[in-house]
Amino acid sequence: MDTLSRLEATIASRRNADPASSYVAQLNHRGLAVMARKLGEEAVETITAALAGEREELVGEAADVLFHLMVLLGAKDVTLAEVLAELDRREGTSGLAEKASRSE
Amino acid sequence: MDTLSRLEATIASRRNADPASSYVAQLNHRGLAVMARKLGEEAVETITAALAGEREELVGEAADVLFHLMVLLGAKDVTLAEVLAELDRREGTSGLAEKASRSE
Amino acid sequence: MDTLSRLEATIASRRNADPASSYVAQLNHRGLAVMARKLGEEAVETITAALAGEREELVGEAADVLFHLMVLLGAKDVTLAEVLAELDRREGTSGLAEKASRSE
Amino acid sequence: MDTLSRLEATIASRRNADPASSYVAQLNHRGLAVMARKLGEEAVETITAALAGEREELVGEAADVLFHLMVLLGAKDVTLAEVLAELDRREGTSGLAEKASRSE
Repeated sequence: MDTLSRLEATIASRRNADPASSYVAQLNHRGLAVMARKLGEEAVETITAALAGEREELVGEAADVLFHLMVLLGAKDVTLAEVLAELDRREGTSGLAEKASRSE
Repeated sequence: MDTLSRLEATIASRRNADPASSYVAQLNHRGLAVMARKLGEEAVETITAALAGEREELVGEAADVLFHLMVLLGAKDVTLAEVLAELDRREGTSGLAEKASRSE
Repeated sequence: MDTLSRLEATIASRRNADPASSYVAQLNHRGLAVMARKLGEEAVETITAALAGEREELVGEAADVLFHLMVLLGAKDVTLAEVLAELDRREGTSGLAEKASRSE
Repeated sequence: MDTLSRLEATIASRRNADPASSYVAQLNHRGLAVMARKLGEEAVETITAALAGEREELVGEAADVLFHLMVLLGAKDVTLAEVLAELDRREGTSGLAEKASRSE
């Protein structure tokens, strides 16, 4: 079982745990706006790490984006499989065709 | 080979292609600030989709976040494997321990 | 009457105009999520302009942030005066006191 | 002297102060990437406050956006006057003309 699938399972199993014992439970307890905000903050930190930071920092911030994206998706009952299927669907088209199908 | 690994390979193969024929090449040609900006914009759209949009929209925006995150990582020569290894490393710690090791 | 007060009045007067004839009306017609998204996108562009762009670009993006912030505040019936009063209130405290009163 | 001009003067006077005694000095000491990141985070918090928060929260987050935008502009030696002049210039055009001159 790969990293993201395992992370998805872990997040699902912790969502309704005691907020005092799990960061995932805490985020879910605080609500959707907090989970959305965390994703936004990590994306901002990824941007500044990419433009002005160290390589190590970028790795950590990218991991934070993936983690908080999956927490947010979990809270909305969207699975990783659905998001990957959407990427696969787009991958079928290529080059500028891909670009044309993307809303910029 | 799974979706994200395949996407990573596709992005790597297109980075130096003709910008007129590939969206990935176009982004790389326009530079790091544009790639960083695209990630930020897709994260913002994921936030608004999660808080005020349709489920379908959230799936599409999450796919856009993953795609543009991988384009940005590729441009900085950071591999998906490094980011997943960082997630695995954190997964080793759990509950509040995990939280404590996370910079909030 | 200064620039921001005049802008606030202009935004208020256009909110319910014909979307075909006014950008402000168009944003309000499209809804709060779109207005919020525009603010986020302009903030991201300001970040990348500050870290990797030309001075001229930063001036334009900062103007875009102010414009879309005021459109969003207008849509929520929050006045510029309220926001400035909040800044004045904080200004009363100074140095680290100011910092302490700020949620980081 | 109005709030934003006074804030601009305060920020300018504190930029090179002792980081231990001033939040503005601390931000400047930590560098441009941190100032840019703070603006991004406050914009994200404004978005979530507008879409899912209380009115009071939106007022506070909008004040945070203005404060951190001005800290960032100050660090890049861009004046508030320049940004307001840009808004005035755009205001000269109206309705869809305004929209056409805006990069979306």
